[in-house]
Formats: sequence, structure tokens, C-alpha cells
Amino acid sequence: MRAGRLRLPQITATIGLPSQQSPIMTLTFEDFPPGRFGTFGPRRVTREEILAFAAEFDPQPMHLDEEAASRSMLKGLSGSGWHLCSIMMRMMFDGCIGRTASLGSPGVNEVRWLAPLRPGDDLTLDVEVTEARVSRSRPGTGIVTFKAVARNAAGQALCEWVSPIIVARRAGASSGQAG
Amino acid sequence: MRAGRLRLPQITATIGLPSQQSPIMTLTFEDFPPGRFGTFGPRRVTREEILAFAAEFDPQPMHLDEEAASRSMLKGLSGSGWHLCSIMMRMMFDGCIGRTASLGSPGVNEVRWLAPLRPGDDLTLDVEVTEARVSRSRPGTGIVTFKAVARNAAGQALCEWVSPIIVARRAGASSGQAG
Repeated sequence: MRAGRLRLPQITATIGLPSQQSPIMTLTFEDFPPGRFGTFGPRRVTREEILAFAAEFDPQPMHLDEEAASRSMLKGLSGSGWHLCSIMMRMMFDGCIGRTASLGSPGVNEVRWLAPLRPGDDLTLDVEVTEARVSRSRPGTGIVTFKAVARNAAGQALCEWVSPIIVARRAGASSGQAG
Repeated sequence: MRAGRLRLPQITATIGLPSQQSPIMTLTFEDFPPGRFGTFGPRRVTREEILAFAAEFDPQPMHLDEEAASRSMLKGLSGSGWHLCSIMMRMMFDGCIGRTASLGSPGVNEVRWLAPLRPGDDLTLDVEVTEARVSRSRPGTGIVTFKAVARNAAGQALCEWVSPIIVARRAGASSGQAG
């Protein structure tokens, strides 16, 4: 697993300070209408990554031991479901969140692990906005609910999650002015 | 972040082959009646771990950049929610799953991120079985639904999730014999 800091070339949002955010390249609530958003990736997942994540966070034999994995219900080495979720988060970051005025997320409505993540899989992430609404408690923000589906190169869905993310509205939106 | 393989001293279950599993120290479906199961930990989370995970999977400024984090909604550096979930998985492994005849999980019903994970937090994990039922499709197995709540040293709940795990029944249980 790579460690240390990565450079963050795409970040332009000033998190938590929507009034000061850069107007250039920063996506706000208004940029996420309900509907298909896009497909991110591909992102290859290596055997070494699968083993390193499993050793750290989920050392069940099906994620760490080739022979035990071959006898498991999943019939071969597979990545931890939490690893797959974490990779999906990174694909979301690279695809949009890294340049979005995101303030964080209260959680995940549902995670479904549908098929095993295999070493060498090339993942793509289909992203849809299922709901977008202005926050009642913080009128300068909105709640954008994303559905993300990770697929392997054959198009098979491996995992899907639905998660709300708090996103700042465009400057002036909270006071009723046009964007 | 540590990499490389960890030894797996506690694993005695032969995953996916309940009929061959070791009778010694392996927890089966019968060992998870509904109710409180236990509290695992403590497990300290370091700043270095938080930064390493964020750099790899969730490089939002609030997880990676001290100054940006201080200006964020969470008012200080906080670990990625996916990092916290992954640490909770490891605490589940160390606490029970590592010696359970687990066959995997279809997903997570709900993840709620309730308060920020901070550098230096000592986490404990409260684990409860909310439901335990024999599988209709695979009578040799049962579905054990766990609710896990991660707390900091002050007892504040940082994250909770509810997730079903497929667990083998004791040998003979599927053919209707007593345990």
C-alpha cells in the first residue's frame, strides 16, 4: 500500500468556508441535479493492495490466504468489502469530490457487496445523483445523495452504496439571490 | 500504515467448509444469540495512520491538511469515515470474527458517522447481536446481524453500523440433529 502524502492537484474548494471558495472549478450543490452524473475510472486493483489492506484491516483467510480462499464461498482470493468501499471513495474523490465544496457526510444509507473483488480487476464507478435538496438546518448547504456502483471490466456490479454528502450552495444562494 | 502479512493465530475455522471445521475455539451461529455480545478494544488511532489512510483513499483536506481541517465543519483533523469503518472491521476481527466460522457478508444495512475520529483516540467497540436466523437458502448457515458502535475514550459514539454476517451452524445442525 502506498503511504505518505499524495499531492492534491484538483482541490480548489475551501472546505467549510463556502463564502470564500474559489469560483473556478469548484462544484457546488447546483452542479448535482438528480440523474446520471458520470462514470469514473478505470482503476486497477492489484493483489498486493488486496493483501496489504486485508493484513491491516480485515485479515480473514478469504482476503489473505490463497489456499483458504480457494476453499471459501467466494472461490478464490477476494478483496475485503471495506477495501472496495475505500477504493470507491477514492474514485469518488478523483472523479468529483476532490473539486466539490463538500463538507462531509453523515453516513451511508446502504452498502451492498454483490460480487467478489479480484486481484487485477479494473474498476469503473457509475455515479448517479438520486436526490438533491437544500438543507433546512443549514440553508447555505444542500444534501446530495449519491448512488455509486463499482463494476469490473466485464461490467459486473461488485458493490453499490447510497450515501448523502453535504455540499455548499453557490455563494449568494442562501440569501435567495440568483446563483 | 503497516503492510505485509500478519500472522493469524486465532483462526481455526475452515471457511466455507463447516462440516470440516475444527470444533475447538470456533464460534458458530449458535454462539450468537440476540443481545449484547461484548466490548472490544481499546485500540489507539494515530495521526500517522489517519494521514496515511487519507492519502490513499480519501484525500479531502479535512482528513489530510491540518490547517484546512481547522477551518472545516469538523474543526480539526479527523479520520476518514471509511478509515473508521475499516478499523471497526479489524476490531470485529480481533474480537470475534477471527475465531468465527464466518462465510462473509452481503453488505451493511446502515453506516452512521456521528462524530469525528481524532488523532490519538482510543477506540472501543460495543457489539450487539440484533438478529440471528437460520438461512432459508443455505440451511447449514445462519445470518447474524451485528450492530457495532465505536466510541472514543470519553464514551462518545463516533460511528455505528449494522451488518449481517453469514456464519456456519454447528456440525449436524443442518440435518436437524441437536447441536
